[in-house]
Order: sequence, then structure tokens, then C-alpha cells
Amino acid sequence: MNAPVTVQSQRTDTSPFLKRAWYAAALSTEVGPEALFHRTILNIAVMIYRKQDGTPVAMRDRCPHRFAPMHMGKRQGDEVACLYHALRFNTDGHCVHNPHGKGHIPQAARIQTYPLIERYGYLWIWMADDQPDPALLPDFSPLEKGPETGIGHTYMYIKANYELIIDNVMDLSHIDHVHGEIITTRGQLSPLTPQVKEDRQAINARWEWKQTPALHIFSTFMPDPEAEARHFFDITWTQPANIQLSVGAIQGPGELDLLDCVGQYDLHTCTPETETTTHYFFSTRRNHIVEDGEFNTFKIQAMHTAFVEEDGPIIEAVQKEMGTTLFFELDPVLMSNDIAPVKVRRLLRTLIDDERANATA
Amino acid sequence: MNAPVTVQSQRTDTSPFLKRAWYAAALSTEVGPEALFHRTILNIAVMIYRKQDGTPVAMRDRCPHRFAPMHMGKRQGDEVACLYHALRFNTDGHCVHNPHGKGHIPQAARIQTYPLIERYGYLWIWMADDQPDPALLPDFSPLEKGPETGIGHTYMYIKANYELIIDNVMDLSHIDHVHGEIITTRGQLSPLTPQVKEDRQAINARWEWKQTPALHIFSTFMPDPEAEARHFFDITWTQPANIQLSVGAIQGPGELDLLDCVGQYDLHTCTPETETTTHYFFSTRRNHIVEDGEFNTFKIQAMHTAFVEEDGPIIEAVQKEMGTTLFFELDPVLMSNDIAPVKVRRLLRTLIDDERANATA
Amino acid sequence: MNAPVTVQSQRTDTSPFLKRAWYAAALSTEVGPEALFHRTILNIAVMIYRKQDGTPVAMRDRCPHRFAPMHMGKRQGDEVACLYHALRFNTDGHCVHNPHGKGHIPQAARIQTYPLIERYGYLWIWMADDQPDPALLPDFSPLEKGPETGIGHTYMYIKANYELIIDNVMDLSHIDHVHGEIITTRGQLSPLTPQVKEDRQAINARWEWKQTPALHIFSTFMPDPEAEARHFFDITWTQPANIQLSVGAIQGPGELDLLDCVGQYDLHTCTPETETTTHYFFSTRRNHIVEDGEFNTFKIQAMHTAFVEEDGPIIEAVQKEMGTTLFFELDPVLMSNDIAPVKVRRLLRTLIDDERANATA
Repeated sequence: MNAPVTVQSQRTDTSPFLKRAWYAAALSTEVGPEALFHRTILNIAVMIYRKQDGTPVAMRDRCPHRFAPMHMGKRQGDEVACLYHALRFNTDGHCVHNPHGKGHIPQAARIQTYPLIERYGYLWIWMADDQPDPALLPDFSPLEKGPETGIGHTYMYIKANYELIIDNVMDLSHIDHVHGEIITTRGQLSPLTPQVKEDRQAINARWEWKQTPALHIFSTFMPDPEAEARHFFDITWTQPANIQLSVGAIQGPGELDLLDCVGQYDLHTCTPETETTTHYFFSTRRNHIVEDGEFNTFKIQAMHTAFVEEDGPIIEAVQKEMGTTLFFELDPVLMSNDIAPVKVRRLLRTLIDDERANATA
Repeated sequence: MNAPVTVQSQRTDTSPFLKRAWYAAALSTEVGPEALFHRTILNIAVMIYRKQDGTPVAMRDRCPHRFAPMHMGKRQGDEVACLYHALRFNTDGHCVHNPHGKGHIPQAARIQTYPLIERYGYLWIWMADDQPDPALLPDFSPLEKGPETGIGHTYMYIKANYELIIDNVMDLSHIDHVHGEIITTRGQLSPLTPQVKEDRQAINARWEWKQTPALHIFSTFMPDPEAEARHFFDITWTQPANIQLSVGAIQGPGELDLLDCVGQYDLHTCTPETETTTHYFFSTRRNHIVEDGEFNTFKIQAMHTAFVEEDGPIIEAVQKEMGTTLFFELDPVLMSNDIAPVKVRRLLRTLIDDERANATA
Repeated sequence: MNAPVTVQSQRTDTSPFLKRAWYAAALSTEVGPEALFHRTILNIAVMIYRKQDGTPVAMRDRCPHRFAPMHMGKRQGDEVACLYHALRFNTDGHCVHNPHGKGHIPQAARIQTYPLIERYGYLWIWMADDQPDPALLPDFSPLEKGPETGIGHTYMYIKANYELIIDNVMDLSHIDHVHGEIITTRGQLSPLTPQVKEDRQAINARWEWKQTPALHIFSTFMPDPEAEARHFFDITWTQPANIQLSVGAIQGPGELDLLDCVGQYDLHTCTPETETTTHYFFSTRRNHIVEDGEFNTFKIQAMHTAFVEEDGPIIEAVQKEMGTTLFFELDPVLMSNDIAPVKVRRLLRTLIDDERANATA
């Protein structure tokens, strides 16, 4: 994790996003050893690359001289030279070489860097100006426990505000209506009002139900694929935009958890590109046939397709119809299945308001 | 015709359009028996479909729960279930089924419906909140008199404000300049100042002239295709954006009307999608070789092509150059041929202003 | 050169551009003998065509009647008839024929014309309302001295503010970093701080250096292609957006000028289409193998490609990153190589401010 270089700005921050938080900047696999990767995060163009020892670094994708994107430049060891006039910067964002005139390096020739943590298959970025707080990155360590053939990761670009994606996942009652046979609960889920628990850091919702046969994704791994099974969904939102989802099924005695059930431990995490576009990441680790690499590839592709072809068009259509991100101003009709997503919207709003109040205090 | 369900909005209506009026929402043929048809009208997304008995219904294309487009949903008999969370609505826009929790249906779970009249080959929609006034739909009954092989309908999407299309049709002097040999008057039309009559509901313009030979579209149906013929154009604008156009030619004695002449009875009608895009509909019923289906198909296709390839590019270029819909603020140079279209613009403005004044009174 | 027809506008000019100046409207070759050429210049749509005697004329590309683009119309000798309703205008922008009604021509039926000067292979346009000042067109007469096989012209459309292109050319230190082997100085240029001279009309920068071998574009024309040569760059900005660039190399005794050196006399000139898009023109006349037409074609194509593929993407990326044209508000880090471009930005700003102050005085 790099120490941040803060370039002071006189302008007031009007970002609509929580800034003191860890956002998924990229999947670890998206940033190759040599590449100057770039992605816009919270409206800011960011360049990410790996040092020769593999450590990732992130900095604003903009030369402070004449604003050319740094990712168009050239690597020189761990340093990057701007393509336009060859100012060269080190991983701290300091200019270390100026080929012009006598080579004087202006004090202001610095690029804001952003701390990164590489963990759980992701590069997590801290976009705020102040000291990063590693404790704010939630624990998703179950993603790391098990073989590579038991986990899949994917990235999706969605033309909608990130909160609409969170709404989608926090209210799982949509699955019987939006998705096909693969994860149908046969109408068992919608009548249930999930148990919801909350504190200042997290909002949890939990459903338990029986169905016959089990969820299609699990039924073939059950003792009796045609028989009834008990199920659970357990989802936890953590700031800024993570939803950890566990789901499992069991026949006979045992607890409704991932120790006893056939199930999987998933992470949905959203990173705003802009107010109306989102980088949507998804990971899933299953606890069955974990050595089957072929099945692993099939499974993550199937889930990617379901999100992109089934949830994606609805979420993007809602964004288009809303034309704004001010959800509550449109007077939505809220129901029992909205309890969890509405709690998330309200807590997130509180966290953002508090952050701004502190920033101006 | 449905009774309207009005969902009160606290927001002030800033629509630039006349609302208490019947707009062409679709050709009857555009809305099949099973389809959930959708089209944006006066900036509002509308879904239109037919009940099992064929009666058309229209409602806002937006679920009041989380704003998914209703047309993405599923028909269940005469009802439609939202794709996202399966709230089901009847043709009055009332939610009749909520699969979530205990199935409670919130009072606010209602969708605004819009009254429709199906007539003259069109579905006419009433977008205002108050009681529809069927008397405001003009009489275009000649469209319905005669065989199907004597009438053609077409739909065109134009990237321009609807008033620019009305300007185009209300000033027929453009035809010698914009169109080709098919409807040339050989310069006879432009020197004429049409007779213009007006009242609060309608503005009529009429041209009469002679030319040799007759208009190409009629000459082959004349006793002597090469000889002089007397002609007339008679056009009547009615609110909000209809222009009924009759045109005919005759050799020898007889009146300049569609009883005596070889001619046709047309309807041009415009429905704003937005301030700068328009749904443009056209119908034509001729009074000659009315049983010739092949000719009928050829004729409507030829007229469609003329509008789209000859008028369309000019109208869209004017819109682009204007960059605004405030025609009079650009100080147009107005001439004798502008009398009728300018009267329409002024009367329409008066009607809209009156409607708003009444709304706030 | 036409006398201007000024159509008075009540609106305040908020143009961000210098108006009392000659902008390159087109290359002479872009406007054929019959064509109604059109191009948007300083946010105004302009039509340019040649009279039958070849003299070019320019007028607003908008009929004062109903705002159809005049370039869609039809030539009738030296006059142009609007496609929409056939109002015909002469080269002074006066309406000379109205086919409607009694043919009365309204006083206001006039189109603003713009004075043109055809010189140096360009059509130069005066977009201000007042009397044009021919003395404000700089002297680029060396472009005209020599055979056609010794000069090339090209046009490029760049999605960036024109000042970013001027920045690019005024700071030639970029060439070692952006361009390839063809014009590399092998790092000799960047360490030099150019001599800069300025007055109210012009800003000049000059570099002199030695390199081995000579610039690749000149080395094969040197006595010893592998040996050291002395070089110079001499560039002069003149308002509104011209940069005349001379470059040459010499071995042995002689002056660093185009009389003694193997070199070329270039013109870069920019014409804003909008605040964020630019018509970029370039001309180059060389003083060696001037009769070789094949080489001439190759050379201008190679330079066009270098600008479009090497400078263009950087300049457009900078524009996208800036998102605004207010360069100094973004706190650029300025260095020794920025002296000349910053002087140009400041002088241009002064000229624009003075022009506006005079306009409102």
C-alpha cells in the first residue's frame, strides 16, 4: 500500500460519492505486469500499473504539465514518462526527470497517487485525500480459501447509477421474476419478509425457505436431486458498495450455513465511474466440486451472462426512465421487499452527509 | 375508451405542448393483439396494448415501484405484470397482485392511464389529466369510406420539432422546389396567395390553379393526359397537429372537390416525442382505381419515400440550424406564402397559453 | 473581396473567439468551381462558393426565411436559390427573386456575407461585422514562390480547442517524445530554451542546435548524410491562430536560414469550428528537389499522417481530460518550454478582451 500524495485543490468537493472507502478499482487479473491500465473512478481518470516486483500503484491519469493521460506514456522501470513532453514520474507521483531546459523540476510537478490494497482477487483503491484506513476494507477472506478452480471473477460495465445495482441485489425477491429456471425458488422467496439487521457499518438480510426440488444450481449436488431441500440466502451490504451474498441448500439435518450446505460465497461490488455508469464486479466461490476447472469456467460465464442479459437491461432501462439519481424524489411505491435496499440507501446517504460535514468542519 | 386514472403530481407542468387534445399514438396496425407496444409521447413513456377483446389501452410505461418499463413485462390475460418484481396491473392501472410479503397492495401502486379512441386507422391518445373530450377529435371519416385497397397509412420518425412539419405542409408552395416531377405544378402554385379562413378550432387554406398537363399523380386518370386541367388544394389544420389535405384535378365542367375531381383525401398528423423529435403519421385515400391493391401499395411507398427523402432532410437541417424551437425569436423573414403556417403557430400558441392559464387558475 | 453585408443582431456577442481577424475558411482546392461548399466557423454555418469568374464568396449558410441551409440549394449562375422555397440570393446576400405571391422582396430578406481573400492557397474569411482590414492578413508569400511540385497543403479535423493545437506547435520540444525517427533531434531540442521575441502582433521563438546525423527529413539532401549538421527552427505566431514555421539544416559554412539551408517553410493555421473542435490546416514548401511531384505527394501525406496519428490523439485526449477550455484555471505546471505557448495564450486573451471592450465602448 502506497502512502498517498495529496495535491491540494482549492475547489470544494461536490462529489456525490462516499470517498473515505475502498472501491474495487480492478480485478487483479486486469492489470498485467507491464500494462498501464486506466479506468475512470468516481469521475476521476486513474492509471494503475504494477511495479517490477508486482506491487500495484495508482495515480491520477493526467500529467500536471499539460494534462495528457499518463497511460499513453512509456514505462521506464517503475517510472512512467508522459508521452507528450517526457516528464517522468515515480510511483510516489513525484516528477523525477524533466528533459527541458536545465532540467529543473517544479515543486508542483506532482501527480496525486491513490493507495491500493490487493486482496481477494481485487485491487481496492482509496480515493479520498486523507490517510487511508485499512480497517474499512471488509473481510471477504472466504474468497481466498480454496483452490483457483473453485472461484470465478468477472467484470461488467453497466450504464446505470451504482445504487440501482445495489437495490437489485439487496432485494432478492426479483430472482423468480427476472431470472430463468436456474435459480428459481418457485415463488417461495417473494412471500417472505427477510430478517434485516443493521448497524453503522453493515446491513444484513436473511431468507430461509424450503422448495422442491432444490435450486437448480444445487439440486444435482443434493442426496436426492428431486426432493425438497431447505435453503438460505444471507446478504450483507458494507460501505461503500459491497454486497457479500451466501446461498446454500441442504437435505436432512444440519445448519443453514456454508459449513453444512451445498452452496457458494459471492461478492458483488460496485464502483461508480460517473453518476450514471458503474463498474460492476462479481466473484463466486463454491464449496462443491471445487477441483473441476471446466465447471468453474462454465459457472462464472453463466452467471456473467445472467447479470448482463437479465438484470442489466432492466437496471439500465430504469436509469433511463429515472433520468436522475434522486430516487426518493420520484416517489417510489415501497413494499416489504424494499426494506433492506431502502435501509442501505438511507445509511449510505447518512455516511456521505457525515463525510461532507466533517470535510467542511 | 377508458376512464382516466389520474395520479396526482405535485410538480408544475412545464410541458410546451397542448395537452387537452387527441394525439395519434400509433397506427391501429402498429399494435398487434398480443404486443406490449411502447412509444414516448409528449416526453412521457407510454405503453399501449390490446385487451383480449381487441380494445386498446394505454398507460404510463413505468412501474410505480422501481420504475422499470412496463412493456418489458408479461401479459396475463388483460393484465400486465412488471418484469422486475411482478407487481401486476389491470387495464385501469390499478395494482391487482403483489407477490411480496403478505400481498398488501399499497394505495399508491397505481399507474396513470390515458384514454384512447380507435378511429380512422389510428389510436388517438388523450395525455391531459382531466376528463377527455371526444368532441375534440376532428372528423376524418372520409378516411373510412371505401375499400382497404384505396387507403394507405405510414409512420415516419423525424428529428425535428413538430411545428416545423406543420409549417411544411401548411405552405404547399414548397412542392415545386422540394419535390420532383411527380407533383410539380410547373410553378403555378407559388404566385398564388391561398385563401385562408380561420376560427378558434381550425385554419383552412385553399389554392386553385390550372396546369398542363395535370399533376403527374392524376394525369393518367384524366380524359386527356396531355391536356390542361383545373386543380385544387384544400388543407385544414385542427388542433393539436392535424392537417387534412384534399387535392384533385378535373378536365371539363365540374366542381373543384373530391366528388367531381380525380383526387385524394389525406391526413398528416404529428405527435411530439420530445421538443425536437416527432412521430409523423400520414394517410391517403384516393377516389380512383380504389380496388387496385398493387397500386395502393406502390402509392403509399412512393409518398413515404418523398417525405422521408425530400422533406425530411430539409426539416431536420432547419431544426439543427435553429437549435431551438423558438421560431419567432430568430426573426424569420415572412412572406405571402407564410400566412397559413404563421396563423397556425399563433393559434396553437394561444391555445397552449390558455390551457396553462386555466390550469393555474 | 466582397463588401460585407451586416445583418444587425440585437443580441450581445458572447463569442469566445477573436473576430476581427482572417481565419482560414478552406483550402482553395476544397471549393470547386460549381460546389456550394459549407463549413461551420466560429460556431456559425457558412456557405462558400465560386462565382463563374472563379471569385469566391461566403455567406451565412442559412436562409433568412425559414432557416434552411443555403448549401442544400441550387446555383443559378452566380446566384443561389434556397432548396426549400426557392428564394434566390445574389453574391451580396440580397434576395433577388421571390417566386411567391406578387414577388415582393422583403427588406429583411438578406443574408450576412463575409469578406474573403484568396491567397497562399487558402480562402481567408473575416467573421466580424465591421470593415475587414486586409493588413491583418499576415504575409505568407514564400508559400507562393516556387513550383506546385514544391508545396503541399492538407486539412485535418481535430476534436479539441484550437489553442491546444497552437500550444502543440509553439512548443516544439514535444517532437522527440511524440514523433518517430523522421524528425527526431536525438534529444538536442529539449534542453534548449528558445529565444522568444514578441510584440503586439507576433510571438517568435527560435532554436538552433547541432545533431549527427541531420534531421532525417533533410539528411539525404546533405553533402554527408551521416555527418553532423547545424539546424534551426524559427516559428512565428500571428493572430488569430497562424504559426509560420521554418526549419533547416546545413553542413559547412552558411547562415541558419532558408537561403543557405536545406529546409522548408511551413504554415500551421487553425480555425475554430466550436469551442472544442477545430479545422486545422497545414502547408509546407520545401527548397529542395522542388520539381519532384511524387516526392511532394509522399511528403505531405507523411506529415498529415504524423499530425493525425501522433499529435492528434494526444491533443484530443487532453481536451477530453480538461473538459473545459479554461487552461489556466486547471493550474498547469509550466516550464521553460512553455514560455512561447503561454505568451501566445496571454496575448490572444488580451486581443480578445480588447476587441470586446471596444465593441461595448
